[in-house]
Amino acid sequence: MNLLSTINDPSDLRKLQRSQLDRLAAELREFIIQSVSRTGGHLSSNLGTIELTIALHYVFNTPVDRLVWDVGHQSYPHKILTGRREQMKTLRQLNGMSGFPRRSESEYDAFGTAHSSTSISAALGMAMAARLKEETYHSIAVIGDGALTGGMAFEALNNAGVYENIKMLVILNDNDMSISPPVGALNRHLARLISGKFYTAARNVGKMLPTPVQEIAKRLEEHAKGMIVPATLFEEFGFNYIGPIDGHDLDSLIPTLQNLKQLDGPQFLHVVTKKGQGYKLAEADPILYHGLGKFSPEEGVKPVVSARPAYTDVFGKWLCDTAFQDNRLVGITPAMREGSGMVQFASQYPDRYFDVGIAEQHAVTFAAGLACEGLKPVVAIYSTFLQRAYDQLIHDVALQNLDVTFALDRAGLVGADGATHAGNYDMAYLRCIPNMVIMAPADENESRQMLSTAFHYNGPAAVRYPRGHGPGVPVSEDFATIPVGKAEKRREGRTIAILAFGSMLAPALQAAEKLDATVVNMRFVKPLDEDLILEMAETHTAFVTLEEGTIAGGAGAAVAEYLSEAGITLPVMMLGLPDEFIEHGEVGQLLSLHRLDADGIVETIRERFPAE
Amino acid sequence: MNLLSTINDPSDLRKLQRSQLDRLAAELREFIIQSVSRTGGHLSSNLGTIELTIALHYVFNTPVDRLVWDVGHQSYPHKILTGRREQMKTLRQLNGMSGFPRRSESEYDAFGTAHSSTSISAALGMAMAARLKEETYHSIAVIGDGALTGGMAFEALNNAGVYENIKMLVILNDNDMSISPPVGALNRHLARLISGKFYTAARNVGKMLPTPVQEIAKRLEEHAKGMIVPATLFEEFGFNYIGPIDGHDLDSLIPTLQNLKQLDGPQFLHVVTKKGQGYKLAEADPILYHGLGKFSPEEGVKPVVSARPAYTDVFGKWLCDTAFQDNRLVGITPAMREGSGMVQFASQYPDRYFDVGIAEQHAVTFAAGLACEGLKPVVAIYSTFLQRAYDQLIHDVALQNLDVTFALDRAGLVGADGATHAGNYDMAYLRCIPNMVIMAPADENESRQMLSTAFHYNGPAAVRYPRGHGPGVPVSEDFATIPVGKAEKRREGRTIAILAFGSMLAPALQAAEKLDATVVNMRFVKPLDEDLILEMAETHTAFVTLEEGTIAGGAGAAVAEYLSEAGITLPVMMLGLPDEFIEHGEVGQLLSLHRLDADGIVETIRERFPAE
Repeated sequence: MNLLSTINDPSDLRKLQRSQLDRLAAELREFIIQSVSRTGGHLSSNLGTIELTIALHYVFNTPVDRLVWDVGHQSYPHKILTGRREQMKTLRQLNGMSGFPRRSESEYDAFGTAHSSTSISAALGMAMAARLKEETYHSIAVIGDGALTGGMAFEALNNAGVYENIKMLVILNDNDMSISPPVGALNRHLARLISGKFYTAARNVGKMLPTPVQEIAKRLEEHAKGMIVPATLFEEFGFNYIGPIDGHDLDSLIPTLQNLKQLDGPQFLHVVTKKGQGYKLAEADPILYHGLGKFSPEEGVKPVVSARPAYTDVFGKWLCDTAFQDNRLVGITPAMREGSGMVQFASQYPDRYFDVGIAEQHAVTFAAGLACEGLKPVVAIYSTFLQRAYDQLIHDVALQNLDVTFALDRAGLVGADGATHAGNYDMAYLRCIPNMVIMAPADENESRQMLSTAFHYNGPAAVRYPRGHGPGVPVSEDFATIPVGKAEKRREGRTIAILAFGSMLAPALQAAEKLDATVVNMRFVKPLDEDLILEMAETHTAFVTLEEGTIAGGAGAAVAEYLSEAGITLPVMMLGLPDEFIEHGEVGQLLSLHRLDADGIVETIRERFPAE
Repeated sequence: MNLLSTINDPSDLRKLQRSQLDRLAAELREFIIQSVSRTGGHLSSNLGTIELTIALHYVFNTPVDRLVWDVGHQSYPHKILTGRREQMKTLRQLNGMSGFPRRSESEYDAFGTAHSSTSISAALGMAMAARLKEETYHSIAVIGDGALTGGMAFEALNNAGVYENIKMLVILNDNDMSISPPVGALNRHLARLISGKFYTAARNVGKMLPTPVQEIAKRLEEHAKGMIVPATLFEEFGFNYIGPIDGHDLDSLIPTLQNLKQLDGPQFLHVVTKKGQGYKLAEADPILYHGLGKFSPEEGVKPVVSARPAYTDVFGKWLCDTAFQDNRLVGITPAMREGSGMVQFASQYPDRYFDVGIAEQHAVTFAAGLACEGLKPVVAIYSTFLQRAYDQLIHDVALQNLDVTFALDRAGLVGADGATHAGNYDMAYLRCIPNMVIMAPADENESRQMLSTAFHYNGPAAVRYPRGHGPGVPVSEDFATIPVGKAEKRREGRTIAILAFGSMLAPALQAAEKLDATVVNMRFVKPLDEDLILEMAETHTAFVTLEEGTIAGGAGAAVAEYLSEAGITLPVMMLGLPDEFIEHGEVGQLLSLHRLDADGIVETIRERFPAE
């Protein structure tokens, strides 16, 4: 690591000879493999951007030139080269370095990212600001081919393409060819671009012709250039399209970027990279090596054999089981087949499986269209990504009271991914929407039952379940449902009734043992079990609500609203996540930090109700 | 109206001779002009779709074939021809017919619309359902060129284009050429398509060449066809592109649709229409005749001279005034220049005015990018449309605590536009997001002050103001601000404290006179004025919260949460909008219906607190 250890800043990098950069790339690659093997994190994507990152910082004058990494899970090489090499060992840990670019972390992180498809909009804002301020910095967005299918990327391309005098470069990091089957027309387009045969053929036709026909054909060719090559798509959007070039070849990257740096107006560079590049195991299975725990670089990732299923697995199995029972079930994912546990469903029911690309908005309205025709769509989506389809959920699904089931994974604390992926808001943002049924399972078996309940409920219903494992309750094979809006009393105690939502039931039960409190497994965030709340209010002196979500507008607020409506005045303490963005860290650490483990709950309740 | 009066159903239409349809179109046009002149509503867009609607119902077998109208403000001809001619007189009135397609209104309304860009997703869902159910109906989306710039339309095109065996037709109703300046690359693309010169020229080159060069050139032409014609964009997305054809010429429309009906796979028909077609006044000023009150068809729309400014006008003037003071201000609208009151700003500050197209997501992240560079973006957006950019607001603006001002127009009840446009949810969905400052003005002058406050606040801040007029408080010319998080006591009373948010202050003050209640103008939904709440709690026996928004998770819930946090137990009655979709009707009627006028408030409070 002789070279890499000398790079504390991109200015160090720029002092290197061009001939040294290949060695730097090799060192950087080895560093990342070793480092991620010790901390866990994203691997394949970062191995794919090593040369591109070196070339960008070598050619452009960062941080004066703005560099925006779309999604940002490919930004480790960037972090390492911009003074954060040593912090890699704290990656994604509590108080450690984020796995995504963060403005608060470094001046080199021009824009915080994590959700897909934001980079072009952000970079366009920066480029426009340069124009308005009469500054000359460049704004660069690096976006993957997957992220390019997100609608807002197109909104941004459409808007950017009309500005002729901005210093803006969009780099398409095209690496999907070797992974999932193409899911959209854009993938197909890019595949044709890369094959590139079309343009070559057309050009050769020109060469065969005698003058002056050749002259005419030449003009035809000029018209056709970038059109017969299906570069058209980006050129039609007003960009100057260059590429495709090999994104692992510094001899291609550096001169191309140097040339592009001289050009005004929106530039589009198409770079082809390989996820996992340079690490054989990751090249062979880039999905497996996408997001990892710790592993041995020599032996590779060992399949984790878990004795019990994660919530995601419970969903995946329920989906297959129910699909077998009811052929109206269709499953929809916005490019999250693996993360959402749909691999088996996709292979068993390919005709009823829809990966619509990174396109949450379309996913939800597409589901609405299917529901109009009597099918029963299940949209599997992370809590944080449903934010992307909020209007579609309101306007297309809930308003029309359509029968769509939302399987909300990663609801609540998400751990290492941190604030950008927080599943803290869904109870609040869903609860204010009429017609919604919202459930939160306390354990794995209840999660299955709630999925069945949502599926059978003839209207929009969401089941929000946590990332990772539950308490380990065995999951039944049957299709039992739960009466809509019915909670269950789980422990009979005195004076205080803890109304626990979802994952908070387990610590609530533990805490209740010390407090001799009553515990209700609320199950439904909406509709609430009003009868049981009334009964509890009559028999207890105070309520404590407990939820793994933001208190602001959350499930506890729902209880307070109902009490207000019923004219009941009772002390209510609402426990949940505070009104702040929760940073990365282990879920257990974060629960403890926010006093949502059993001990924290006991202490908090005793502070407030010392007498009870 | 001899012909029109015989059409009670599209089956009646299909019995007509082709030769009778032009007369029907003329009658329909006259009927719409007369009808809208009496009820108000959308005019230009509906005059533009008369022939297209006739042709669609003539050729396709509706309602078996599914017809989805994007946005839906062009669906009056459709409504009239599908059995709702008589209901046109109740258009957009309480208990009357909706101004948009509604599934609950007619089996011919295959999908409810109002927000832009949803139709392709919905129609694709329906087409996919047909394939899965092995049915043979067609699914048709009619989408305007403006709506096509919305990201989700692209997500849907990208997804649809890969399915070869679906019966799906997208009709682009291209009518923007004569209205606003093109705002994106797509507009430019469409303009070139319509001019169509490129392809013609290229074809002629081929004709000049001798054989066998001609042969080669012919092959080149074949490759080039649909590429040199920039039809490419849609063809690259996997659609079979036909057009452009004249959307007012039934002789073009009917045979083209008949041909398309025979084709499988995703079809794309480009139709050129003129907004306001056939009504000279609307043709001359389609924006003025877009959405109207009552008017005289002969004399046309009279400019409404209002003695006092609407909230939108207050914003528009504030924007210009502040832009003059501070050159860091930039104004952003997602294609709502007129509706948001930005006409004057756009003309005075063209370099700092950004109409990004119907692209709310991009609008917000573009603003975030500008804010990163020290500019001070103001995003003017309707409350209901901010739902489209919810994730961007969370992930790109709030999480990075960027200095973006959101001017939320049409917050609360929206009147005639109805449930699809409801501004009821913003307090709930914004309040749960950390870092947000949320204000609700009680009058016009306060709205200006809050806009200045938001602008000077160094972080994300939203001002949510109602549609239409306020109580008529004169608006100062200055740039006064309000201390963040400070409410003001407006009336000193006894026992009950009414905590009124925004527009509810006026009826609260009226009600308080009868109740002798205290009234606080809360001003801030977030952060709450906790000190004043504590003071009120100490000096009153009960709180009534009042807001023009949904109670679920709204401002009243915020008060309850704070009381809970502070350990205060006090009866709280939360008044606001119920947990249901509020249908169209006059705002005054709706307020009264939901007991949010002064009388309703008094009655509700007396019922709950008879003793006070």
